[in-house]
Amino acid sequence: MTYSALLTDLYELTMLAGYHDQGMHQRPAAFDLFFRHNPFRGGYAVFAGLDTALSFLEELSFKSDELAYLDSLKIFKPAFLNYLSEFRFTGKVTAPPEGTVVFGGEPLLTVEGGLAEAQFVETALLNIINFQTLAATKAARIKIAAGAATVLEFGLRRAQGPDGGLSGARAAFIGGVRSTSNVLAGMRYGIPVRGTHAHSWIMAFPDELTAFRTYAKEFPDSCVLLIDTYDTLQSGLPNALIVARELKERGHDLAGVRIDSGDLAYLSRQVRAAFDEAGFPGVKIVASNELDEHVIESMRREGSRIDIYGVGTRLATCAGEGGGALGGVYKLVSMNGEAKLKLTSDVAKATLPDRKKVLRAIAPDGSFILDLIALQDEEVLPGTVVFDPANPVRHVRIPEQARLVDLRRMVMENGRRCLPTPDLESSADLASAQLQLLPEGCLRLVNPHIYKVSISAGVNTLRLKLMTRIQSKYRI
Amino acid sequence: MTYSALLTDLYELTMLAGYHDQGMHQRPAAFDLFFRHNPFRGGYAVFAGLDTALSFLEELSFKSDELAYLDSLKIFKPAFLNYLSEFRFTGKVTAPPEGTVVFGGEPLLTVEGGLAEAQFVETALLNIINFQTLAATKAARIKIAAGAATVLEFGLRRAQGPDGGLSGARAAFIGGVRSTSNVLAGMRYGIPVRGTHAHSWIMAFPDELTAFRTYAKEFPDSCVLLIDTYDTLQSGLPNALIVARELKERGHDLAGVRIDSGDLAYLSRQVRAAFDEAGFPGVKIVASNELDEHVIESMRREGSRIDIYGVGTRLATCAGEGGGALGGVYKLVSMNGEAKLKLTSDVAKATLPDRKKVLRAIAPDGSFILDLIALQDEEVLPGTVVFDPANPVRHVRIPEQARLVDLRRMVMENGRRCLPTPDLESSADLASAQLQLLPEGCLRLVNPHIYKVSISAGVNTLRLKLMTRIQSKYRI
Repeated sequence: MTYSALLTDLYELTMLAGYHDQGMHQRPAAFDLFFRHNPFRGGYAVFAGLDTALSFLEELSFKSDELAYLDSLKIFKPAFLNYLSEFRFTGKVTAPPEGTVVFGGEPLLTVEGGLAEAQFVETALLNIINFQTLAATKAARIKIAAGAATVLEFGLRRAQGPDGGLSGARAAFIGGVRSTSNVLAGMRYGIPVRGTHAHSWIMAFPDELTAFRTYAKEFPDSCVLLIDTYDTLQSGLPNALIVARELKERGHDLAGVRIDSGDLAYLSRQVRAAFDEAGFPGVKIVASNELDEHVIESMRREGSRIDIYGVGTRLATCAGEGGGALGGVYKLVSMNGEAKLKLTSDVAKATLPDRKKVLRAIAPDGSFILDLIALQDEEVLPGTVVFDPANPVRHVRIPEQARLVDLRRMVMENGRRCLPTPDLESSADLASAQLQLLPEGCLRLVNPHIYKVSISAGVNTLRLKLMTRIQSKYRI
Repeated sequence: MTYSALLTDLYELTMLAGYHDQGMHQRPAAFDLFFRHNPFRGGYAVFAGLDTALSFLEELSFKSDELAYLDSLKIFKPAFLNYLSEFRFTGKVTAPPEGTVVFGGEPLLTVEGGLAEAQFVETALLNIINFQTLAATKAARIKIAAGAATVLEFGLRRAQGPDGGLSGARAAFIGGVRSTSNVLAGMRYGIPVRGTHAHSWIMAFPDELTAFRTYAKEFPDSCVLLIDTYDTLQSGLPNALIVARELKERGHDLAGVRIDSGDLAYLSRQVRAAFDEAGFPGVKIVASNELDEHVIESMRREGSRIDIYGVGTRLATCAGEGGGALGGVYKLVSMNGEAKLKLTSDVAKATLPDRKKVLRAIAPDGSFILDLIALQDEEVLPGTVVFDPANPVRHVRIPEQARLVDLRRMVMENGRRCLPTPDLESSADLASAQLQLLPEGCLRLVNPHIYKVSISAGVNTLRLKLMTRIQSKYRI
């Protein structure tokens, strides 16, 4: 997908025009992209969207019809439009690989470049990273709730626009939902596609059995029958059993049945018992109908016998706490080599100034102990004292035996990717592996254990110094 | 925007393949697209997305790379892929104009054509209509809450992917939010674009006053200053007053100030008083920060002095009751001239069979009395008795003095638009006018009056007959 350069807020362009006119547009600047709180009131987030974001940056340019439109607004000078016609992103991006488990407060992308170019890309980067990280996190929650069962994403019809379905399916794959009904996502991202038939297939035939038989004839080796059109136990199940026997006689196996209404947990047990009794233990049970991580967890707790959860609406739209949005922001942290801080009315929410690195303290057994945000050039060793960003006097010590690993790396330099892009499968594997290494309780759906994200002495001291300076300057 | 033919669920293609192989693909069929419940537990919805949907239908075709991908799945026969290579939508669409106020249970689009083509377009039509109708409805709720104040949409950075922002801005315009920060939406749909500067603009200068002065110099006639970077009342407001005076000396007017944090209602009163006292009653106050219809209504009730509400996240993602999705569905209602009915476990939720029309009973003063779903060829006159679709024995009489107006018209025939497309402004005007004609209480944000949607004697009788037939056939 190509993104238009105009996929931005007008204020990015007015600021750009101002910086350009003031001759400030090439001052070296750095911005951090981060979110403050883990989505869904959960214990983590799964980082996604980087590859999409890097493609946007590489392709960014203003086409002639776009420049003509901007000219028609009558707020920009010809010299500025001329500058835009040559505009490219030539900066540097530091970021973790997609699939990395990340937390509120941590810089995800750091964008360095001229003030103008680094500022301008704010809106598009936020749009891409906010949604894909949110969708990957939702998918991880659902996959974890489903345990050993498979999860299939089929939310396209309820997604927020075509791209909500498409980039949502991509992000869901990274989060652990590794199949989709979305054929375009299959073609574009190589995600395995799955699907059977709708109730309308049944209604298009004189009766349910004829509809089942016809579908089984068409797809003898991938036949999943939707058994709830008239009545799951009275009609759908007995008819599916007939078709399972007929398929067997012809040397095929019925792949599964899908239940899309009613009490899915109860029905799944009845259907499982009937197929087992009839000698078809291999027939999978697919369940769907407004599922999410909470419903799935609760159905598993009461002993449902579901092999595959089809999750649509609530995955595609990232429904739940937070209203379907990750609140990622993009803040200036350095200009002309000078650290910058944004104060808010709540001091604990002041930004972390200057260029930084994100370190993860890892125990000898590989499990994650805490994350640490330090200044880019600050030396931090195991055993060091680190601070709570919300309360500068609270501190802990990094265990002596921990390894410190830098979570991020430079992925773009001079406006071009400088590392090979991992394939989607590797990103999904990374997320899956990292989720297993979190402290106990971090994966809990409700009231999870809060993973510690600390700041180094360097960040803590610099931040307090800048806060004091601003407060005295503005008498606040 | 062009939509790929593969922007669909795999099961649409497997069903298509089945119908094709069975020689059923050209049987005449009709599908209704409708939602069951008004979004946000509100009293209405604003229909949007039709023009986007019609473009999708007109442009629908399978490209050679798409066919190659489908072939690679190894589930489709060559004869079917050959059929797909020639596939076009050649059917008929009936729908209300965009901006029409509609209600749960009413057929919005009715798609008629060969069984295969009419079935195949389900996923994409639902994707488009569900989201745009939801976003238009959210926008209408927000606009109504804002009263005479202006609402500006600026949710792109939090929208669910690039198209969430783009088609969201389009739909929001239809719902009544007639300006956006999204420059691409401005270019593509002619929506007025607005914007000023971010906190980072302030932080890029040595101090706030220098930042304000520079912005005012760059944009002397459209200058809106963001006054909450350090402290709204101690720093931002006095500095903005200085710039307002300086602009005036040079013959310009400060357009406004924006407050993005803190107690917006309180701050707006303080800022208003200060500007009024200093002789600047024309300076507008823009407020933003996680606003939605409920926050806006509550702030207005306590006497806030806000002229322009900037609404981002919660409009762009349609946050609120319903989890960011409109639950639109697409059901077969007729095949080979035979009416079709989909039964669910809740009999009151059975679909309405056959091809139908949606009539609105309008009082002599223009206000809306009730809507009525009747069979396509059924004659319905004022004075007729109509029925509650959820309870076949409850009925009311259409007032004798009412006019009955058909809400829908044929908008596509033989796969081509057959009516001129209204411009976006007309659609927004239609929505605004219709919302004023609803019965009192329908616009209430919480627990609104429920507008009556009835079914005709013809629909009621046919539905009961088909229900009885299915129940006896499947012994349920």
